[in-house]
Amino acid sequence: MNARAYRHELVEVAQGIRPADIFIKGGTVINVYSGEFLQQNIALYKDYIAYVGENEVKINENTNVIDANGMYVSPGFIETHAHPWVIYNPISITAKVLPLGTTTTVNDNLFFYLHFGHSGFKKLLGELKKLPGNFFWLIRLVSQARYPGERDWFNKEDIMDLLSIEEVLGTAEVTRWPLLYKGDPVLLDIIDAAKKMGKVADGHNAGCSYEKLNSIAASGISACHEAITAEEALDRLRLGLWTVLRNSSLRPDLSKIIKLITDGQVSTGRILMTTDGPHPSFIEKEGFVDGLVRQAVEHGVPVMEAIQMVTINAATYLKQDDFIGGLAPGKKADILLLPDLIEFRPNLVISNGQIVAENGELTVQMPDLDWGRYLPEKPFSFSAGILANHDLYLYPNESSSDSVPVIHFLSNVITKRKDLVLPTKNGFIDLSNQEGLMYAALIDRKGEWVTKGILEKFAVDLDGMASTFNTTTDLLTIGRNPEAMAKAASRVHEMGGGIVIVDGNEIILEIPLQLTGMMTSDPSFDRAVEFNDKLLTTVQSRGFPFHDILYTLLFLTCDFLPGLRLNPFGLYDVKTDRILFPSTSMTNFLKEMKA
Amino acid sequence: MNARAYRHELVEVAQGIRPADIFIKGGTVINVYSGEFLQQNIALYKDYIAYVGENEVKINENTNVIDANGMYVSPGFIETHAHPWVIYNPISITAKVLPLGTTTTVNDNLFFYLHFGHSGFKKLLGELKKLPGNFFWLIRLVSQARYPGERDWFNKEDIMDLLSIEEVLGTAEVTRWPLLYKGDPVLLDIIDAAKKMGKVADGHNAGCSYEKLNSIAASGISACHEAITAEEALDRLRLGLWTVLRNSSLRPDLSKIIKLITDGQVSTGRILMTTDGPHPSFIEKEGFVDGLVRQAVEHGVPVMEAIQMVTINAATYLKQDDFIGGLAPGKKADILLLPDLIEFRPNLVISNGQIVAENGELTVQMPDLDWGRYLPEKPFSFSAGILANHDLYLYPNESSSDSVPVIHFLSNVITKRKDLVLPTKNGFIDLSNQEGLMYAALIDRKGEWVTKGILEKFAVDLDGMASTFNTTTDLLTIGRNPEAMAKAASRVHEMGGGIVIVDGNEIILEIPLQLTGMMTSDPSFDRAVEFNDKLLTTVQSRGFPFHDILYTLLFLTCDFLPGLRLNPFGLYDVKTDRILFPSTSMTNFLKEMKA
Repeated sequence: MNARAYRHELVEVAQGIRPADIFIKGGTVINVYSGEFLQQNIALYKDYIAYVGENEVKINENTNVIDANGMYVSPGFIETHAHPWVIYNPISITAKVLPLGTTTTVNDNLFFYLHFGHSGFKKLLGELKKLPGNFFWLIRLVSQARYPGERDWFNKEDIMDLLSIEEVLGTAEVTRWPLLYKGDPVLLDIIDAAKKMGKVADGHNAGCSYEKLNSIAASGISACHEAITAEEALDRLRLGLWTVLRNSSLRPDLSKIIKLITDGQVSTGRILMTTDGPHPSFIEKEGFVDGLVRQAVEHGVPVMEAIQMVTINAATYLKQDDFIGGLAPGKKADILLLPDLIEFRPNLVISNGQIVAENGELTVQMPDLDWGRYLPEKPFSFSAGILANHDLYLYPNESSSDSVPVIHFLSNVITKRKDLVLPTKNGFIDLSNQEGLMYAALIDRKGEWVTKGILEKFAVDLDGMASTFNTTTDLLTIGRNPEAMAKAASRVHEMGGGIVIVDGNEIILEIPLQLTGMMTSDPSFDRAVEFNDKLLTTVQSRGFPFHDILYTLLFLTCDFLPGLRLNPFGLYDVKTDRILFPSTSMTNFLKEMKA
Repeated sequence: MNARAYRHELVEVAQGIRPADIFIKGGTVINVYSGEFLQQNIALYKDYIAYVGENEVKINENTNVIDANGMYVSPGFIETHAHPWVIYNPISITAKVLPLGTTTTVNDNLFFYLHFGHSGFKKLLGELKKLPGNFFWLIRLVSQARYPGERDWFNKEDIMDLLSIEEVLGTAEVTRWPLLYKGDPVLLDIIDAAKKMGKVADGHNAGCSYEKLNSIAASGISACHEAITAEEALDRLRLGLWTVLRNSSLRPDLSKIIKLITDGQVSTGRILMTTDGPHPSFIEKEGFVDGLVRQAVEHGVPVMEAIQMVTINAATYLKQDDFIGGLAPGKKADILLLPDLIEFRPNLVISNGQIVAENGELTVQMPDLDWGRYLPEKPFSFSAGILANHDLYLYPNESSSDSVPVIHFLSNVITKRKDLVLPTKNGFIDLSNQEGLMYAALIDRKGEWVTKGILEKFAVDLDGMASTFNTTTDLLTIGRNPEAMAKAASRVHEMGGGIVIVDGNEIILEIPLQLTGMMTSDPSFDRAVEFNDKLLTTVQSRGFPFHDILYTLLFLTCDFLPGLRLNPFGLYDVKTDRILFPSTSMTNFLKEMKA
């Protein structure tokens, strides 16, 4: 980490009294303030820019003079909406995206807060200050799936305390946006307080109409990244929301949404772009924020506007434009040397005045965080033995009606209710001859409840799978074969979290995710890609028809996407806000075990 | 003042559950976020906007339904750089500009702080919260003319305390910008702290080259309004400074500077406009922020960009765009109905949800502030008698050289040194036969010192004038006739501050300015215009060759404009930073009086 410059030192460098630490000469500077490309030099001192202009500055034998001839000099890219927990972790994702030119990320604290609580998350935040790059946070106000005790865990006092931290730039997306629409007093109160503190209030308003968005804007939300068409994006822009165009692994929509700019005549100053937590393989293939810029330009956005969206616009939204987002004296030295304006892949990345990557390779040591300190002694409160009981996975035929509500997959994350009449056996629905249907059970980490469901169009040939990678981080089991499900679940239990697939009686894939059940603690991003690729290949070869298995798993247990979901309260119909089949107590199974 | 809306109330109005207070129907809404003109309705509740769209909302018999057919609906205008002390005072200027559509002003605290100190200014700030409109402040870090004890008066502790107040949006212009250029540690320290608090740091960098501006930007300054050409404005924009295009009474430069936009291809999101404290008659004739928009459009700026500059751009610069600057749900209801996009004169003005003006007339009562509480018991520490001594005004011939440095006026505020050999009489320079030259003496309010000078090209036929309207608010006396000067000074002394002109032995003009010596406490803006007009006519008829006498008086005692000035330390050469002729002690005069 670079030492912090005092302003009087910058003034001295600007005047040639004090030698610069780094002097970037002869490049074409991308000036996002004026919207111009200028032949200028840039002098850095410690972590800040001291001079931008045509002159030479004072240098000495310690000055690193960088020849930028033939290169474009860009401000570092900013990702305002990152989820640093998609198998990768804060360290491995930072190590990956810094060489791609993303020098600032604003990160979701969801799983860290859920697992480590207020004080544990605060400790982590403190430790992650050692990361190169600017690693900011947004603070969740609720989880992504209701659970008993949620409001106490996300209490106002703890949240306000976190909001007072310098690295915390605001409140995170409220995925259950109907809470805002209904005027939830606690949420509105915190958002109002956050805004008065000069923090932002990030939004998430998928499928929200223009008329309904009025209430969301009135509630104090400042931004939304959930538009999936140019029209939806325009709705958001018109209502004063910072409009974040998304291209994620789950929703690679940029080619459509970008028409907001390319087909329209709108002011672009309040338009941003985000990758919204793409899976590791997507980043490997498409890049990160660099990929957004590349695609925006491919689709016809002028280069300057594409870069402004991920630099100065983003910084201004975050109220950090005094410090980041542009190349001027008195701003942090986050600088990219770009060989072209086509790929937008930097061959040199400077973050806080330090060269952190060259030719796509990290040149600094990442902090060696002891993740062990963040792992629970007992990831599951129950012993593994219980998982051998097949009844845990089967769907009881307790319904008085003849049909059973089935979770039918329409896409990676959208499902619909389908009511099927199914055979029963020993008091359970019998799927042994039902091609395409499989069991799903979400087993509480604490061993108190289990929620059952039946899936259709998931992966017809899957025997058994278990995964803590889901938005509750409980033990989600899926399969057509309870024996294989049990084996997968037992192995995940043994690993302390992760994803396991069993074929017949054989474990054919295992991904250890001890870190909150979502992340590998492996510092290598490549490892995350490898896990991701193997997982997708494995489920696709067993009939999974979609492209993003991680988000399918993640959101099968959420409570904000249509239609049926498994959550701690039971089989849940999002649209009607009704529990169709309540979760059952695990006590019976525990009793059986003891008996 | 309107009650403060809770966000859940806004949500209810947006959804038609709660009736709106005001419903503006059928107008063309100027959407500064998207840059579009849209046929939409707007619903207000208490002080906020609850709904913007094509639908109807719930109303009841108490709802004021406003027909905006054929009208443009604009966000209220924002003046980011106001000086509420140019004869007018905070109340009379607000009463004037609100009906002109300026619903937010950000005000310089200079004279209030100089006279009332930290606690007195804080009291005033509290009382002025009652003003309709948004009345924000910027806090001075230094005065506009050095004086003994200045740094104690402007101490960091008091300034940081003021910066913590909600209505204080940042630090005010540092007119003596070489302090920043030299890296003054106290100033840089405060600016750095202010920026970390999310406040702005307003700049003032007249005549500062691109190269020197690098140091100013490095010092942390966020904005500058001192460009007088499009090139100078571009320098500021390129260096990351919010670039404020000025059209003031002193510097009506917009027609030139606006070429930054009309002749260029620059991004306009960080360009603002300001009136920079125009004299009362200028506002009467040209309007306020409305006049800036009108002129910008006349000069070829697209209407949308002209309005964005004084609404959303201004709000974003101030980091207040969550609350003001655009028409969207969840923002403050500061709304104008404009009959056309030529004059930009609103026929209805809503501020914080309250109708404050119709057809150019204020419709609300202004707060009746008891200015008496802010007046000193003894505006001058010495008795009036001393002012009868003519020696007080005469320039002593103490110099060993043959020539005397004369303040030669080149424009309203720019002077140059001219060295003249002049006759002497009784130890004083004798101007009795020197056509075009006159005496000037700045007499300390505290009765400790007097600074002497000789003026050329001021107002050749002026017998005597005295004025506390100057940047030190000491007693500035000017004239060719010491007897008339004495009479004018005595009358100002008697009034407790103001401007007086004497012709022969007759007082022909008097403007009482008891409020810090700069402002009338009269709540009528028309009175300020009347004073201003009469003053200008009077001095012009006596040979004053320029257009803005108030700024001539104001800046004759400053220490940041070229070339010679009268300040507390003596006759001062700004460019060389040298005292050419030090101030003399008033003790001698006081002794003479007693003798």
